[in-house]
Amino acid sequence: MLDSKQRYKIAITYDGTSYGGWQIQPNCISIQSSIEEILQKILRQKISIIGSSRTDAGVHALEQIAHFDTPFSLDKNKTLYALNCLLPPCIRILSLESVPISFHARYDATSKIYQYHLHLSPIPNPFTAKYAYHVFHRVDLSTLKRAAADLIGTHDFTSFANEPTRGPVARGGGIRTLSRIDLIEEEEGICLEFEGNGFLYKMVRNIVGTFLEICQDKICLDDLPKILKAKDRRKAGKAAPAHGLFLVKVKYEQDSAIKNAVHLEKRLS
Amino acid sequence: MLDSKQRYKIAITYDGTSYGGWQIQPNCISIQSSIEEILQKILRQKISIIGSSRTDAGVHALEQIAHFDTPFSLDKNKTLYALNCLLPPCIRILSLESVPISFHARYDATSKIYQYHLHLSPIPNPFTAKYAYHVFHRVDLSTLKRAAADLIGTHDFTSFANEPTRGPVARGGGIRTLSRIDLIEEEEGICLEFEGNGFLYKMVRNIVGTFLEICQDKICLDDLPKILKAKDRRKAGKAAPAHGLFLVKVKYEQDSAIKNAVHLEKRLS
Repeated sequence: MLDSKQRYKIAITYDGTSYGGWQIQPNCISIQSSIEEILQKILRQKISIIGSSRTDAGVHALEQIAHFDTPFSLDKNKTLYALNCLLPPCIRILSLESVPISFHARYDATSKIYQYHLHLSPIPNPFTAKYAYHVFHRVDLSTLKRAAADLIGTHDFTSFANEPTRGPVARGGGIRTLSRIDLIEEEEGICLEFEGNGFLYKMVRNIVGTFLEICQDKICLDDLPKILKAKDRRKAGKAAPAHGLFLVKVKYEQDSAIKNAVHLEKRLS
Repeated sequence: MLDSKQRYKIAITYDGTSYGGWQIQPNCISIQSSIEEILQKILRQKISIIGSSRTDAGVHALEQIAHFDTPFSLDKNKTLYALNCLLPPCIRILSLESVPISFHARYDATSKIYQYHLHLSPIPNPFTAKYAYHVFHRVDLSTLKRAAADLIGTHDFTSFANEPTRGPVARGGGIRTLSRIDLIEEEEGICLEFEGNGFLYKMVRNIVGTFLEICQDKICLDDLPKILKAKDRRKAGKAAPAHGLFLVKVKYEQDSAIKNAVHLEKRLS
């Protein structure tokens, strides 16, 4: 049924191993282009999707959020089924729902949760090799805890950002609020869970890489406040590799069901 | 150091996705040939390894056991390190130990544990897609329990074996003892754990496939004893796919440490 423009929100999970990241780029297959291609096949019109987070090449997502517009009223279950039939198994659409036209997957996000998985057993595990960074050196939990405490809060994270001034990623300059860095002990390693109102380009990986250099005594733990203050990427450690990173959850101020109800009321009144 | 022939036992874990199974075969890369090739590079001699279980193409192992002979006394840590440096990340050697020359990885095994993972959530998971069989239809736990009860014990499992009479796999004809089939509920599915004194070719996958056809009312649950009795592969269900299957553990009568001590005593006396 042709209607005025409608906006849909989709939740996506993907194994990013074989992709050049979320965003469309020349000379590689992106998650975004893969989904747009299938949506275009189903809806027979040009579709652009906007994701909440432009995850980098090799980064995975347990739940990425995106939106797209179409003049069609979509049958939720049928569209979801068709999408998952046509997409490669590395990408699955978890849900599809109608949202107010004002909803924006990136700008409305109030916080995001990322996890970085470190695998610490002496022998790497073939089953987690693509989903955790195997580290041979010692990683001390209490050192990580002290390092995390220095970064929690509102700071200018420019020292931990690779391209801090380009495009909408850097809205508000380098200032971001990291509300928590939880350290979760796992069977064969440690998971670092980051929650914040926004993340600069490669910020989580640069923080994890710096923490690992602190564990190796290449960077002094007491220098972390100085590194932050320097606003200089060269002061922090190397980025940890992409394959240990997962976008876990994107939070929005209002639960979309409530927003939908409000939207419906507005349209009916 | 050149010495009389020495036997070594290795524990191996592998992601079988890209391999043509354990056993050397023409036109495909096997786990066995991959390990032999690296051992030959390290030891500069022809090496043949014998595995406890000839896992099929696409089947994984958390702990496969194998043995090989060499005239050299190997430094355990150095050899383990060299093996894991040179092997592809899909194959890891978990341990290497000296065993008496009488030890045989296949014939000395007293029991083996296999797991078959079923993924049952409505939407397949990209991260478990290669390690669990995603089933869309209903799988009833109580039906599985009743089906499992019919197969536990000592039976002729010919109806569940693809090639029951070929080679050493079929020692003792089709008669095997399944000591248990445990049903373990997982976050998004069910794991069927089989322990037995030996398994015929494709036996676990054929049993799981039959159980799934029972859940779909394609095979009647009450017919299981008849299917066993028929000793006819055509009576049972289709094999469940390889990627859900893991060889989990191989058990031996004597702990090898004790065996080693006995062996050493014998050599010293």
